[in-house]
This record gives sequence, C-alpha cells and structure tokens, in this order.
Amino acid sequence: MLERLRTVLIGTSHSGNIGGVARAMHNMGLDDLALVAPRGEVIDQESISRASGADHLLHQARVSQTLDEAVADCTLVVGASARSRTLPWPMLSPRELAARLPDECRQEGARIALVFGREDSGLTNDELHRCHAHVHIPTNADFSSLNLAAAVQVVAYECRMAWLEQQASKAGSDHQKAEKPPASEEQRASHADLERYFAHLEQTLTTIGFHDPQKPRQLMARLRRLYLRARPRRIELNILRGILTATNKAVTDKAGPPPRP
Amino acid sequence: MLERLRTVLIGTSHSGNIGGVARAMHNMGLDDLALVAPRGEVIDQESISRASGADHLLHQARVSQTLDEAVADCTLVVGASARSRTLPWPMLSPRELAARLPDECRQEGARIALVFGREDSGLTNDELHRCHAHVHIPTNADFSSLNLAAAVQVVAYECRMAWLEQQASKAGSDHQKAEKPPASEEQRASHADLERYFAHLEQTLTTIGFHDPQKPRQLMARLRRLYLRARPRRIELNILRGILTATNKAVTDKAGPPPRP
Repeated sequence: MLERLRTVLIGTSHSGNIGGVARAMHNMGLDDLALVAPRGEVIDQESISRASGADHLLHQARVSQTLDEAVADCTLVVGASARSRTLPWPMLSPRELAARLPDECRQEGARIALVFGREDSGLTNDELHRCHAHVHIPTNADFSSLNLAAAVQVVAYECRMAWLEQQASKAGSDHQKAEKPPASEEQRASHADLERYFAHLEQTLTTIGFHDPQKPRQLMARLRRLYLRARPRRIELNILRGILTATNKAVTDKAGPPPRP
Repeated sequence: MLERLRTVLIGTSHSGNIGGVARAMHNMGLDDLALVAPRGEVIDQESISRASGADHLLHQARVSQTLDEAVADCTLVVGASARSRTLPWPMLSPRELAARLPDECRQEGARIALVFGREDSGLTNDELHRCHAHVHIPTNADFSSLNLAAAVQVVAYECRMAWLEQQASKAGSDHQKAEKPPASEEQRASHADLERYFAHLEQTLTTIGFHDPQKPRQLMARLRRLYLRARPRRIELNILRGILTATNKAVTDKAGPPPRP
C-alpha cells in the first residue's frame, strides 16, 4: 500500500524543506517523491543535511513543470488545504484519508498522490480543483501554518498507521500465532502466587509493627488494590518476595544487622 | 486538556530543532515547553526563524538542569523511545497515549510530561526509567530516526486529535460534568513524590542487605517499572513509605523487635 503513495511538492522555495520532507517520508515508509516547478535547488548541502540519510529520495525524485504531469498516472489525487475555500470540496482529515487507502489500493494500478503546496501560499485554487479531495490537518486556529515537512509528516504518519492496521488484520489468525508469548519470567504471576505474596506481606508488616491484624483498617485491601492493578510479572513477584524474606531476616536476626555506613 | 501537556526536551544540540518544536507545538495548541540541560543556544536567529512566529514559546520555556526538576509536578511522565529495550516498559503508540489523556486530565492538578531526548542518542536508560510509560512512533525499521520536531509533531498531533474528539463528544452531551474528580488522597502521586519513594526504597533495601548499590543488577529498574505501572495514588504512596519507615525502625532498633507470638 505505501509503495502506491506519491508525495508531490509544488513550487517549494527552500531546499531544506525538500530534504525534511524526504526524511519524513522515508521514516514512514513512503519513497516516491515528485517535485513540480521547484523554486530553487533540489539537491544541495541544505537538503542533503535535512534528509539525514534519506537523500536517495531526492536523487530519485521526478521533477516536472506541471501538476498534471506529476500525477498523470494517479487514480486518486488529494491536495493539502487550509479549511475554508470559497467552493466547498470533499474535505478529509488525514485520518479519514488514511482510512480510505486500503480500499483505494485494492484496485490494480492504483496510485495515490498527496499534493502539498508552496511554503508561503499553499496550493492555488486551480491546483486544488484538480484534486479528488482535500486533506486538512486540524491546527490551532490562531497559528495554522504548518512547516511543509511537518505537514507531510502528519499525513504520512496517518498513512503508515492505516497500513500497519491493515497488515495486522491481514495476518489475521496467523498474526496471533506469529506473536511470541512473553518470556516465562515476563509472564503475569498466577492468582495463587499473588495470594502467597499477600500472606507473606501481611505477616511481614505485622512483624515490623506496621500492621495489626486485630485492627486491620483497610491496609491490606489498599495494598491488594495497588499490586493487583500493576499485574505483577513472575520475576517482579520473586523480587517482592525476596524483599520480604530479607526484611524478616534483618529484623529477626538476633545479632542485629551490620551498622549502616 | 492541551494546556496540561508539557513538552520536555533533554539535551537538545541544535537551536533550530528547538524552534521547530515550538512551531509544531503551537500549531497543535500546546504551549508549555521545558528544556533540560540544552547543549547550545535556545534563543538565536536559527531557533526564532524555525519557530516561525511561535518564538514566544522559546521565551517562556523553563530551563532546568535535570529531568526531575522539569517534571516534578507532573502526574504522568511519558518518554519517547525506540522500540526495544532490555527491560520492557509499558509501551504506547502516540494514538494510545492520546486516548488516555482525557481520563488522565480529569484529576485536579493533572500535568502530563511528554519527554524527548537528544537528537543523536535519545533518552538514557536512567531517564527512561523515570517515566511511567514510553511512547514509540512506528517508523520504517530501516530508517527509524525521526527529526526531533517531527517526533513532537506526531505526538502533539495525536494529542490534538484526542482533544478535538473530546470537544466534539462534550458538545454532544454534558455527560462529563457528572463525573466528579477523585478525592485528594485518591489522586495520583507526583513525579517528585515517587522519586522520594524510590530513594527511600533503595536505602531501605540496602539496609536490609537485599540490594548492593555497587552491584545493582536491574533491581531498582524492575521495581520502578512495577510501581510506575501501578500509578500509585497519594494514599498508597503514604502507606508504602510508612512500611519503609517501619522497616528501618525495626531493623535499626538496638533493642531488637519484640519476639513474634
């Protein structure tokens, strides 16, 4: 699915932003970058530095002069847009867009363009009207201008999340089998082990004079609630019981403990 | 809800990244920025340029030398982490973290720290062990290092999405009003209180001969994981500290404890 997504940047001014976009894309598993009429260098020190290891996307990027050329083979074209346009267009949130992708990609030859506009002025109305739908990232109304790489990051992240969900549900029952059970010591302690611990704990608290079984107040109930909420692992319960054993030993040792340094 | 979120950056090297983080935060409606031991300038031409109008966050940012100081009043501390750690910790995706926020914020005085590490090396194990949970952004396994501002962007975006959903459902019904915040003693303990407890615990375990700070193995890390997972309430932490005090008293009491019946 992710290999069917193309990120299209129109009229980008700052090469550093192109590099930042490449990094954001590759981090999320998107590798198809297209540039329309960039307003400066594409590959320079700044873009390579910001790409931070994803500069192969810059070298592979297709550069064209028009949006039409860049998305000619695309079956769905979605343009990033600020909310209000004079002419209302189908508007998706990044999450709604991502939710549509598995279905979109079922079609053979499906290719989806995610189109982002200029740093200063976004997409023109003409460009927006070439899109099937618009995607709007919900931002602070008082400060809505996202950095270009940040906008790509959010949309690419949602696409990746949808892909991961699809992978998980595809794997279906096989997935469950594939998932290794946690190591034995990381497994949750059994009820019986926990009860043994609580008995040991109550005895120890009585020994150190903190608990009076004749006047229990809610002490053990509160401690049970705390420890049960934590769902102790076996290894953790072993440690807790080791502490109780050491406490009993230190307190009942006739010779007394070694003096503290 | 968003005003209860604090973004904490530890040991940031590049002022431009701090500016980029400020922009990402303010775009998503998060305004509380804290910096721990920044490794360079905070306010300079680069950071102001990248903040792109959100530089008031830089001026308001609290700077401290330690993570403990930066999150002392926080009731939930979440650290950004790469997936695999030797000691598995409660791990959330950004979406799972965001889904927890409305409930977390119901408590009076709730404050949530989102902690991000160094550009080159992330958070240390010690820093990660001070967190209740870790948040992992699912990235391309072959190219997993996100730009700092991009990582903040994704987490802040999910927080904003959860907030928008909450606003929408609040508008639908006044259901939320009916739910009372928990009583004071049922409120969650703060980071500072928890750290005091862990120090007290470590001292006590050393006193009873269960722990050797020279050979720590993973003892304190495992105990931290257990207790942080349980999200102790104030009253529970009081009980746990009472147990430690009673243990110390019983052990160091020269006369020895009364014989057990």
